[in-house]
Amino acid sequence: MSLIIAGTVRVPPQNLAALRPHQLAMLAASRAEDGCITYSYGEDIAEPGLIRVFEVWRDQAAIDAHFKAPHMATWRAACAEHGVSDRKLFAYETASERAL
Amino acid sequence: MSLIIAGTVRVPPQNLAALRPHQLAMLAASRAEDGCITYSYGEDIAEPGLIRVFEVWRDQAAIDAHFKAPHMATWRAACAEHGVSDRKLFAYETASERAL
Repeated sequence: MSLIIAGTVRVPPQNLAALRPHQLAMLAASRAEDGCITYSYGEDIAEPGLIRVFEVWRDQAAIDAHFKAPHMATWRAACAEHGVSDRKLFAYETASERAL
Repeated sequence: MSLIIAGTVRVPPQNLAALRPHQLAMLAASRAEDGCITYSYGEDIAEPGLIRVFEVWRDQAAIDAHFKAPHMATWRAACAEHGVSDRKLFAYETASERAL
């Protein structure tokens, strides 16, 4: 079954606008990767600067390739530059999926 | 293992502000439920009005109780009133979880 990556990172609210183009580039590059089923960033509706990450990948090999992709290195540099912190991400192996 | 509910709904952007207090009430009431591990709403950073839902529940019984809770009925009425549409939610059984 697929793998989910989900969790949060924090961005100083005053840096959100400057980080946005880097987020959009990361979305586009990740969604174009082999094995990427879903890749998304949301801003928490209750906590400004709390970014909610949600990804679905075909398998672990796809995630391994994702972490080694050139755009990941670019993204990590942008995160450091814009004070992204409190990375709390979890990987879940899924056993089943159904529409609600 | 736990169950994840994840997906999206759409809100007409002009209704987002009016829906916000209903979302905050739903967050608080759901997080107080037995078996609720995570309950969150994020606004997609690339698509205004696309709300990203992410929830983790202890087990199916907790989800069943959640769908029957009084605040769920209130929330559904608020969604109808504010034009929430395109509900695309999925339930995933998890087989493992690890910090990334």
